[in-house]
Amino acid sequence: MSAPRRTLHLNAFLMNAGHHDAAWRHPAASPERVTDLRYFQELARTAERGLLDSIFFADGLALWGKARHNALGGFEPLTLLSAIAAVTEHIGLIATVSTTFNEPFHTARKFASLDHISNGRAGWNIVTSGTLDEARNFNREEHLEHSLRYDRAREFLDVATKLWDSWEDDAIVLDKEGGVYADTDKLHPAAHRGEYFGVAGPLNVPRSPQGHPLLVQAGSSEDGKEFAARYAEAVFTAQQTLADGQTFYKDLKSRLARYGRTEDDLLVLPGIAPVIGSTEAEAKALERELTELQVPEYGLAQLSGMLGVDLTGADLDGPLPALPEERDINGNKSRFTLVAELARRDGLTLRELIARLGAGRGHRVYAGTPEQIADQLEEWFTQGAADGFNIMAPVLPTGLTDFVDHVVPVLQRRGLFRTEYTGSTLRENYGLPRPANRYTRPTG
Amino acid sequence: MSAPRRTLHLNAFLMNAGHHDAAWRHPAASPERVTDLRYFQELARTAERGLLDSIFFADGLALWGKARHNALGGFEPLTLLSAIAAVTEHIGLIATVSTTFNEPFHTARKFASLDHISNGRAGWNIVTSGTLDEARNFNREEHLEHSLRYDRAREFLDVATKLWDSWEDDAIVLDKEGGVYADTDKLHPAAHRGEYFGVAGPLNVPRSPQGHPLLVQAGSSEDGKEFAARYAEAVFTAQQTLADGQTFYKDLKSRLARYGRTEDDLLVLPGIAPVIGSTEAEAKALERELTELQVPEYGLAQLSGMLGVDLTGADLDGPLPALPEERDINGNKSRFTLVAELARRDGLTLRELIARLGAGRGHRVYAGTPEQIADQLEEWFTQGAADGFNIMAPVLPTGLTDFVDHVVPVLQRRGLFRTEYTGSTLRENYGLPRPANRYTRPTG
Ligand SMILES: Cc1cc2nc3c(=O)[nH]c(=O)nc-3n(C[C@H](O)[C@H](O)[C@H](O)COP(=O)(O)O)c2cc1C
Ligand SMILES: Cc1cc2nc3c(=O)[nH]c(=O)nc-3n(C[C@H](O)[C@H](O)[C@H](O)COP(=O)(O)O)c2cc1C
Repeated sequence: MSAPRRTLHLNAFLMNAGHHDAAWRHPAASPERVTDLRYFQELARTAERGLLDSIFFADGLALWGKARHNALGGFEPLTLLSAIAAVTEHIGLIATVSTTFNEPFHTARKFASLDHISNGRAGWNIVTSGTLDEARNFNREEHLEHSLRYDRAREFLDVATKLWDSWEDDAIVLDKEGGVYADTDKLHPAAHRGEYFGVAGPLNVPRSPQGHPLLVQAGSSEDGKEFAARYAEAVFTAQQTLADGQTFYKDLKSRLARYGRTEDDLLVLPGIAPVIGSTEAEAKALERELTELQVPEYGLAQLSGMLGVDLTGADLDGPLPALPEERDINGNKSRFTLVAELARRDGLTLRELIARLGAGRGHRVYAGTPEQIADQLEEWFTQGAADGFNIMAPVLPTGLTDFVDHVVPVLQRRGLFRTEYTGSTLRENYGLPRPANRYTRPTG
Repeated sequence: MSAPRRTLHLNAFLMNAGHHDAAWRHPAASPERVTDLRYFQELARTAERGLLDSIFFADGLALWGKARHNALGGFEPLTLLSAIAAVTEHIGLIATVSTTFNEPFHTARKFASLDHISNGRAGWNIVTSGTLDEARNFNREEHLEHSLRYDRAREFLDVATKLWDSWEDDAIVLDKEGGVYADTDKLHPAAHRGEYFGVAGPLNVPRSPQGHPLLVQAGSSEDGKEFAARYAEAVFTAQQTLADGQTFYKDLKSRLARYGRTEDDLLVLPGIAPVIGSTEAEAKALERELTELQVPEYGLAQLSGMLGVDLTGADLDGPLPALPEERDINGNKSRFTLVAELARRDGLTLRELIARLGAGRGHRVYAGTPEQIADQLEEWFTQGAADGFNIMAPVLPTGLTDFVDHVVPVLQRRGLFRTEYTGSTLRENYGLPRPANRYTRPTG
């Protein structure tokens, strides 16, 4: 008997009118629907029709300068995913929550709730938040320093996993006759006292179908990768070239043994913004059309945010000005480096750089036919750069519908992707085991 | 033309297997479903079938000693209500969130999200949290003092309302041609710097259908009533007798003028746990049946919690031991006083007191036929003690189904309750105006 063939995993990263920063101006987009629940429910159902593993919402805790030139719904992801859970059955639901601006008791509880509500489809994209604008909405004038954010994140996860384990799987006995609902010997306090948190526990929600949500992470700095190796079960990442993808993949997988984990315990999912056309020319034309709709001030502001450097008023036809070193960046370190290298490598003017970043904010963009896109995914998947992909449709809903209707069938024909859902939880979609409860004694 | 007749407003307070502390042991209850979303969706739909104004979930941020002898789902209310919003159309959705253990930016945003998701049906039951067990899950060894909790609550509301106003109603212009999504002149920072919070703003969610969620409050101490008079649009309260109900009603309404508000700006909704039978004897029998299912240790623990006094091991057939004064209570002051007076007035033993508190935890319990229950509601409503009621079914789902199928029609026949939904938002159900945005200049 041969081992089951390795197949790839696909996450639909959903965002407002689409990932391209000019998507909302495109005729195919629906920016008037970004505060309409049904819009997101329809997108989720499209992804489910395509048998994707999961959908995902990013999150930031400040408006920045975003609203003038881009459509913004801004729904809090857990609230939104809960309403989506009610109209879907199979697809995983991944919400971003920041460890820097939240409390572990609330966060553990909300994810346990979502996991119950969705029958085991909850996932948490753990972020540490990168901007001063966010800190300013939470009583701070300075943003917590990068390495301290990861310190806090580690302790946060330590507490959250204790809380998720605080009810053993069989704690509920439901003995109506005897008047006993839960066996309190199977409830465990967290009794946590640490540097950032003091949490008594136990959690006030029984253990959820998955034990706890799938843990996802997306930081690519040294601290970020080390954190991922310890806790994450899936990693979103932005890589521009196959070689960079392979390096990242190998690096991350090699860190797992340190935490008693195997390479199969963590999936690496690089982002790709597929610009799909029925011919290559059509795809390139769509890409150009979107570039022409870009608002340069917005692109500059976004770029300033990614680099942590104010570029307002800079010459669009000149090169990127001199930049600080990564070690002096307190925001998103890996994105800073990626963007700086992209500009340097290809000798781009600011205008060109903004165009290149428009569709994917640093994620890889690829314009082509469904076959060509499937080739790209297959290459990265078989060449040691990916276990699957984070699909970032440039324009919604069309970019997702096209992916589901035209790219998924190609992947299926090649035996690279499922033809039906076989599991019922998010972890089952991803082929990952349900976590054991630390307190449960082995029986037998 | 005569003024439209005043009609009453009904909120269904939903809780696990029912409000009676032994409900989960009753054959009609479904304790095995308290972590099943569909159970709550069905309850919500039953309430909507009965044309009720709203449903409501209470919340506490600790497990206490609850799980051994009572069924507990423990879903976080906003997450749960969002999934309920997806399968209902008219009914209001009121979630409890504590100002003591949350941040205004998160809270304002989540309610704005729920208000969008539900098309204007979100309500917030603002609580300050009463127990040390909750503090211990949030880095504290002491519970914040009662009056400071209300200080913090006032500042919290000040910030939250600024954030909800931070997008004017017409800020989104959606000018695809010109590349302008929002008119940033109609976005306003909160720029708040106070004693408890520093919040820059604006909110990252556009203004929601109701402007902001309906504000509900349930504290009945001096500080609690003053807070309600300033901010609340609906007040839940526990009153045992018509006379107490009238006193509370008059007191609260008389405080409104101080804040430039009229008596119509706030609805008073006392709680009632209706034990419904087709005959009075049947209702009384159900009441007795539930009392017999009570677990005394659980009743004592609940009573200890309400009084802030440890009664473990006390003689069940003796009287309530000597108690401190209300001013020395740092938990729920009004509930303390209500329970102490109930025991004294009726000369109850501990066992009798536990039986009396079983169905309503201090809320009024009334066992009778649908007609008798309607009589009670009508009396309080017409005699200046209530604008409506908080309906606390002792056993779910039957207690709610019986109310909807048998009590609602009586109220309708008497012209006391709506026969169809006429509005589409929660505020429209309650007959309350949509709040104006402080930043919007009058036109004309
Ligand atoms: C696909 C993807 C999605 C991300 N989503 C978010 C997000 O929603 N919110 C956020 O604050 N950061 C987000 N990030 C940023 C990362 O969480 C992380 O903060 C960032 O990569 C910087 O970490 P580093 O400094 O360790 O590289 C995302 C990154 C990637 C690659
Ligand atoms: C119907 C009703 C529901 C309540 N729900 C909650 C709740 O969900 N969570 C909570 O902490 N307190 C709840 N309370 C308590 C009140 O919010 C308030 O804290 C309590 O009445 C004590 O306030 P006081 O000290 O001002 O009287 C509720 C009270 C009533 C009457």
